Amino acid sequence: MKLWAKNTASLKEVEQFTVGKDREFDLLLAPFDVLGNIAHAKMLATVGLLTIDEAELLTKELREIYKSTQDSTFKIHDNIEDVHSQVEFLLTEKLGDVGKKIHSARSRNDQVLVDVKLFLRSELEKTVQSVQSFFDLLITQSEKFKTHLLPGYTHLQLAMPSSFGLWFGAYAESLVDDTITLKAAFDIVNKNPLGSAAGYGSSFPINRTLTTKLLGFADLNYNVVYAQMGRGKAERIVAYALSNIADTLSKLSMDACLFLNQNFSFVSFPTQLTTGSSIMPHKKNPDVFELIRSHCNRIKALPNEIMMMTTNLPSGYHRDLQLLKEHLFPAFETLRNCIDMAGLMLSNMEVKENILEDDKYKFLFSVEEVNKLVLQGTPFRDAYKKIGLDIEAGNYTYSTNVNHTHEGSIGNLCNEQIAANMKKIMSSFTFENYHNAIDHLLGK
Amino acid sequence: MKLWAKNTASLKEVEQFTVGKDREFDLLLAPFDVLGNIAHAKMLATVGLLTIDEAELLTKELREIYKSTQDSTFKIHDNIEDVHSQVEFLLTEKLGDVGKKIHSARSRNDQVLVDVKLFLRSELEKTVQSVQSFFDLLITQSEKFKTHLLPGYTHLQLAMPSSFGLWFGAYAESLVDDTITLKAAFDIVNKNPLGSAAGYGSSFPINRTLTTKLLGFADLNYNVVYAQMGRGKAERIVAYALSNIADTLSKLSMDACLFLNQNFSFVSFPTQLTTGSSIMPHKKNPDVFELIRSHCNRIKALPNEIMMMTTNLPSGYHRDLQLLKEHLFPAFETLRNCIDMAGLMLSNMEVKENILEDDKYKFLFSVEEVNKLVLQGTPFRDAYKKIGLDIEAGNYTYSTNVNHTHEGSIGNLCNEQIAANMKKIMSSFTFENYHNAIDHLLGK
Amino acid sequence: MKLWAKNTASLKEVEQFTVGKDREFDLLLAPFDVLGNIAHAKMLATVGLLTIDEAELLTKELREIYKSTQDSTFKIHDNIEDVHSQVEFLLTEKLGDVGKKIHSARSRNDQVLVDVKLFLRSELEKTVQSVQSFFDLLITQSEKFKTHLLPGYTHLQLAMPSSFGLWFGAYAESLVDDTITLKAAFDIVNKNPLGSAAGYGSSFPINRTLTTKLLGFADLNYNVVYAQMGRGKAERIVAYALSNIADTLSKLSMDACLFLNQNFSFVSFPTQLTTGSSIMPHKKNPDVFELIRSHCNRIKALPNEIMMMTTNLPSGYHRDLQLLKEHLFPAFETLRNCIDMAGLMLSNMEVKENILEDDKYKFLFSVEEVNKLVLQGTPFRDAYKKIGLDIEAGNYTYSTNVNHTHEGSIGNLCNEQIAANMKKIMSSFTFENYHNAIDHLLGK
Amino acid sequence: MKLWAKNTASLKEVEQFTVGKDREFDLLLAPFDVLGNIAHAKMLATVGLLTIDEAELLTKELREIYKSTQDSTFKIHDNIEDVHSQVEFLLTEKLGDVGKKIHSARSRNDQVLVDVKLFLRSELEKTVQSVQSFFDLLITQSEKFKTHLLPGYTHLQLAMPSSFGLWFGAYAESLVDDTITLKAAFDIVNKNPLGSAAGYGSSFPINRTLTTKLLGFADLNYNVVYAQMGRGKAERIVAYALSNIADTLSKLSMDACLFLNQNFSFVSFPTQLTTGSSIMPHKKNPDVFELIRSHCNRIKALPNEIMMMTTNLPSGYHRDLQLLKEHLFPAFETLRNCIDMAGLMLSNMEVKENILEDDKYKFLFSVEEVNKLVLQGTPFRDAYKKIGLDIEAGNYTYSTNVNHTHEGSIGNLCNEQIAANMKKIMSSFTFENYHNAIDHLLGK
Repeated sequence: MKLWAKNTASLKEVEQFTVGKDREFDLLLAPFDVLGNIAHAKMLATVGLLTIDEAELLTKELREIYKSTQDSTFKIHDNIEDVHSQVEFLLTEKLGDVGKKIHSARSRNDQVLVDVKLFLRSELEKTVQSVQSFFDLLITQSEKFKTHLLPGYTHLQLAMPSSFGLWFGAYAESLVDDTITLKAAFDIVNKNPLGSAAGYGSSFPINRTLTTKLLGFADLNYNVVYAQMGRGKAERIVAYALSNIADTLSKLSMDACLFLNQNFSFVSFPTQLTTGSSIMPHKKNPDVFELIRSHCNRIKALPNEIMMMTTNLPSGYHRDLQLLKEHLFPAFETLRNCIDMAGLMLSNMEVKENILEDDKYKFLFSVEEVNKLVLQGTPFRDAYKKIGLDIEAGNYTYSTNVNHTHEGSIGNLCNEQIAANMKKIMSSFTFENYHNAIDHLLGK
Repeated sequence: MKLWAKNTASLKEVEQFTVGKDREFDLLLAPFDVLGNIAHAKMLATVGLLTIDEAELLTKELREIYKSTQDSTFKIHDNIEDVHSQVEFLLTEKLGDVGKKIHSARSRNDQVLVDVKLFLRSELEKTVQSVQSFFDLLITQSEKFKTHLLPGYTHLQLAMPSSFGLWFGAYAESLVDDTITLKAAFDIVNKNPLGSAAGYGSSFPINRTLTTKLLGFADLNYNVVYAQMGRGKAERIVAYALSNIADTLSKLSMDACLFLNQNFSFVSFPTQLTTGSSIMPHKKNPDVFELIRSHCNRIKALPNEIMMMTTNLPSGYHRDLQLLKEHLFPAFETLRNCIDMAGLMLSNMEVKENILEDDKYKFLFSVEEVNKLVLQGTPFRDAYKKIGLDIEAGNYTYSTNVNHTHEGSIGNLCNEQIAANMKKIMSSFTFENYHNAIDHLLGK
Repeated sequence: MKLWAKNTASLKEVEQFTVGKDREFDLLLAPFDVLGNIAHAKMLATVGLLTIDEAELLTKELREIYKSTQDSTFKIHDNIEDVHSQVEFLLTEKLGDVGKKIHSARSRNDQVLVDVKLFLRSELEKTVQSVQSFFDLLITQSEKFKTHLLPGYTHLQLAMPSSFGLWFGAYAESLVDDTITLKAAFDIVNKNPLGSAAGYGSSFPINRTLTTKLLGFADLNYNVVYAQMGRGKAERIVAYALSNIADTLSKLSMDACLFLNQNFSFVSFPTQLTTGSSIMPHKKNPDVFELIRSHCNRIKALPNEIMMMTTNLPSGYHRDLQLLKEHLFPAFETLRNCIDMAGLMLSNMEVKENILEDDKYKFLFSVEEVNKLVLQGTPFRDAYKKIGLDIEAGNYTYSTNVNHTHEGSIGNLCNEQIAANMKKIMSSFTFENYHNAIDHLLGK
Repeated sequence: MKLWAKNTASLKEVEQFTVGKDREFDLLLAPFDVLGNIAHAKMLATVGLLTIDEAELLTKELREIYKSTQDSTFKIHDNIEDVHSQVEFLLTEKLGDVGKKIHSARSRNDQVLVDVKLFLRSELEKTVQSVQSFFDLLITQSEKFKTHLLPGYTHLQLAMPSSFGLWFGAYAESLVDDTITLKAAFDIVNKNPLGSAAGYGSSFPINRTLTTKLLGFADLNYNVVYAQMGRGKAERIVAYALSNIADTLSKLSMDACLFLNQNFSFVSFPTQLTTGSSIMPHKKNPDVFELIRSHCNRIKALPNEIMMMTTNLPSGYHRDLQLLKEHLFPAFETLRNCIDMAGLMLSNMEVKENILEDDKYKFLFSVEEVNKLVLQGTPFRDAYKKIGLDIEAGNYTYSTNVNHTHEGSIGNLCNEQIAANMKKIMSSFTFENYHNAIDHLLGK
């Protein structure tokens, strides 16, 4: 029997549909919801909406709940809708009316806003740390393999000599630019929406500057209408930043799959890192890289998905926003797993020696030969012509010695400068500021 | 007759297909190509690949060509493929062999890379200026209309009082965060790829640090493989930043269309800014806002398009990248037009007075009444209950006086703080640095 | 300690990463994998690769396993990678060597191909049935409310009279076109890839025409390279079709949210179908419609996601394809839930009577008045002018009687023709063909 | 001076902004607008809104205008907004008041709806014809190269023998499925929206069934609200169908670029079809394929763009829809150009002989050797083991003779069946029906 033919509308189905997967994803928000509660309680006491004793009671209890979110004993009851209600329920269960008082001067809307901001901030920090480790590995490998030449392709056609030093270093430098977008996302996330209530503020004389400080935010989302507008926007901008990292990993994976292909055979991996076939000894499938590529390409589609879900919604809260959690929240862990696996693969990658000694790559060096003549004084067009004729006549000789010295070239990778740039952008994150604030909230 | 049935492959069709719209879009790159040429020539002279006299001859001629790009007399000949060849053609036509010498130590690939970076940098600057003006207008209107209340909606349902002060201010603050992403894009764009040649560097002892300085870039794309990898990536990250601005404008336009709808009737516009109907006097179609919304929503789809065109391409140049220009390059002007038109509309918008006096909005104030009781000492739940019973019994009375005082609320918009944040991010762009460098290149 | 610093590469992490969520999503494929196995076994017996007795033993055992997939007792063991291996494991456990023999002349690749095709076919059927019910409801409501007028808007501005008969009927007719795309997807899905092995066929003299018939497919994917190429493509085309349904639902939900907004107040819903507020009696939040809109807009982003994950992959299997299941497979149930909930809402929707009697809608009828004059013989421009002057002078009178008679208009909804078109496209699905085949496979 | 600081709002800028590129894209609609006009005039005469003489005068004049759209003499004047006004202007200029009468019982909205439908129908027909030619070429090449083996890859790793017969045939069969989606799009497009007026019908007793017949549509968009809802939807569904063709071409191009890469060297092209380098004789850049890939990947992003521009717009016309023309309309020609160029490339492609004779491909045949043993009676596991041990011991011998006989395999391509399927779907388009109608309208 169809749902809509029932005599009375079924509340159960409606509730199931509206709650959806919220209980699952709200667990990720639980510790942050508790932090928001502590800050709010402390602030309420300073403006007379709680007594100091009440605020202390609440703080003490909230710190206990926080612990339960850290050892996974925190649960959301089946008959409770979301994390905010669960925390309120626990407080009221323990503290009675005092537990109810914490709800003055805020709304479910700004609670979830601040929870999401705190969650994103924390995940961005973990992502940044993961990127830093991966960057260090890439630089290490770049230095280790700086004399290992490989063909450089344009249009997928053999073009000029390249090196594994260049190849690793390129992806390291790519991460520097990606991190700049992580920083922009962090700066946008690291602002306090708490106190915006349902998106229109309230008549309570709250002190939003204080909760901003208590939660370690760098600033406020001042305008309360904008604070609400940040939902969906913060998520989208974070997804953009993740998609940049993802794109770097995806391209690296595509290269690695090509390099492992037997027609190239530039690299190999220990058997346990590839999947094989019992009878085709040369089959070493790069499943790990293929899955990194696929996960990362999916992450690259995420900003568009968020945009599709929020486009043309007028200002003000809409329930649509609830679903943004479902694909974005797991994306952080997925991306970090991809980074970890890429690190595992690259740190175990074996690079073939003397690739370019193979005769089939000889024309890679033709530009080198032309340039040598030019540097010796032959006009460019004449040099070109001479080498071309040599090739045609079968007199083409070449050296596989590559002497590139300018900034960023095979012989001068500039990894120090790249690392210095990474250090600079990394040091602009001020994670310790918010760590200190959070420690303080938790009484550490 | 089908193309492929012809006896010999037709070069004309192939050429047409491969050149595509390049001549059209390359015109936009022309002044930047000339600048890259001047910097390259000057640098070549310092490393002995040109004489100082040759470099001066080239510089002089290039400055003339630059002028022709400014007064629209510069053209790309029908039989010349692109802007790079056209500039070379002009130089060689005037200076003979000296014109040809400028091509040492670079390739078409890094030429277009540097042209695109310089173009994007310039367009980003214009965009930033446009955003600044629009921001100023929004702040002005926010202050002007700060006492004009309107209903605040959640779930598109009447919720609480809001104000036009809040509404304008929200979009102003939105632009602050958007500008942070413009700054990240600018920082990524403002790095020099010149000298990376075909993406693998060269054996010429060039000085890339010098061209970086001459072109006013903040830094180098060091690694030459990464410099090439920046194609498509810089475009994507810029498109992300544009899409943030676009999303702000699109949402504002959606609000405006709703507010103008006769069921709302919160705002009106002078007749000449809407399209009407000769017999329906109340029909004032908000075509301008609808087109802003549509243009901006298209811009929001642009990052995804760029990603689709570059995903899973291995590292190294591919001709695919040529087409990235076609939708991104015009997007800058489209976005600025949208900002201009939005400014025109908003600066002429008339806001209805006393909207909330209408009885149909009375329940907007119920939360206010509850909060008043709370502030007078009534426990929250009791206050809620009392007002609820009053409403049910028809005894609900309310005042339309709204007294919100906390940061970012109706009575305390914090526009100064928002403006200060805008000023801070705006001042972090260092356009004058590159202006000085460019002026120097042009002998100004 | 970082994963990649460990002395030996950790197989556990690699396995976890490569298996991912496969065990979870493969459960959905289990019954279909069994069906593929039965068909394969029967076919092998006809070409001498199994004896008839072996095939019967396998069939009998597979039918048992099928039952376990229907009563949820089928599980994939922790140490078994996927559904294919689990089924093989069960067969071998029971039948020893005979169990192993079923693996001749196929590969994991075509097994998953056929499983996915069978799964998609089944889900498409359920979707089609769901669409049919919803269509019927819309037609019923269209007829029920055919005399309920509401304002018709263009540019979100009041334009002309419309009706709830038109409104419901429009979405019904939308589903007809959507179903055409479901049929195209069904036709593409309903072709047999089994026997394509790893995408290059095999030297076994198998009979693919027979397995096609046994599994109730309408045809083969003939070319084995194309059979493999269908992975990702079938998913994308199905996602396109789902996104069309989703777009119809999303637009309907947007309309419903507007109509429920108090400035419009065209419709209302029983309290238990909206979420409210204890103190704002007029607050009836349309969470159900907002969530339908959000779910559906996410589904609309799915084709793009699939495309991003498969773009620029060369032909041949890649492990990337494994992840396509994760967002597409649940989308079917989500979409059907959305249809169910939309049906629940619409079947309980109360429509306000006499909306257009309100004076504020009077100009909606001005076009009617002009047309009346025209039909009485007044030239168009003169009629226009007269009504315009009447309005200006305050002499405008109008009747709210709407007499639209042409095909598809308020007075002539053509719901029979629309229903006939739906019936025609619905009857072109030949689900019974494959049901019969499957019943036969299962010995029913 | 900023636009919005001007004393009076500038109408010129507003007009420029709202007209946008309409004059350019409306030229594409001109012939179709004329056809819609003829059908409308003829119908009006049958219901008494025009006299028969008036309808004949209009028809005669409209046929003249039609001719001007065919010889490119039709222009839209600078002071005329769009094609509809231009046609009206021409009629009125010639016929005076009779010209004005044609505007009864329709609106700009249904005029553009019908124009777009007729345009899309015509472009779909051209696309289908282009696909047919390309399909024929692929089948021809598949037969021609059916004995040319190449390595089959999975995970981009050498797996099993494949053939160019399979490779060409796979893309041919891909086009069959793509054409199924073109047919669905055609069926949705081939319905008449004319008479829906502004999306709410009218009080005129028009005969929409007659205009449907006159314009050769297969059916009506009955419901007038749905007729308007078709704008954006028809475009999206057509874009989906184009994107399927585009994906087939894009993947083919990626394969071709790999095959031309010197590490593979499976194919080559005449010099005039590639771009080269004067000194690297082996450099044959596949620019044509790279540009096909890029154009096609952009087309694949088009459905998402259309969706982003229309998502969450309530029902009823919005000016947003105007911009949908700009990227969709040129996409047809771009796609056909891509098909033409791919045809040119593939018809001139030279395939290397005896690729698999190279020793490096020897393990491709190991599965063949196993299967041979199985077919001779050796149990599978034992056969596997034996070949594995042979390989390890260096005793592995193999034959490069491939004997695949089942449906769709190397030795049994089933191109006839594939062609028969193509013929079947192709013959379901009934272009001649509408050709006859159009010829009749034009008095041919």
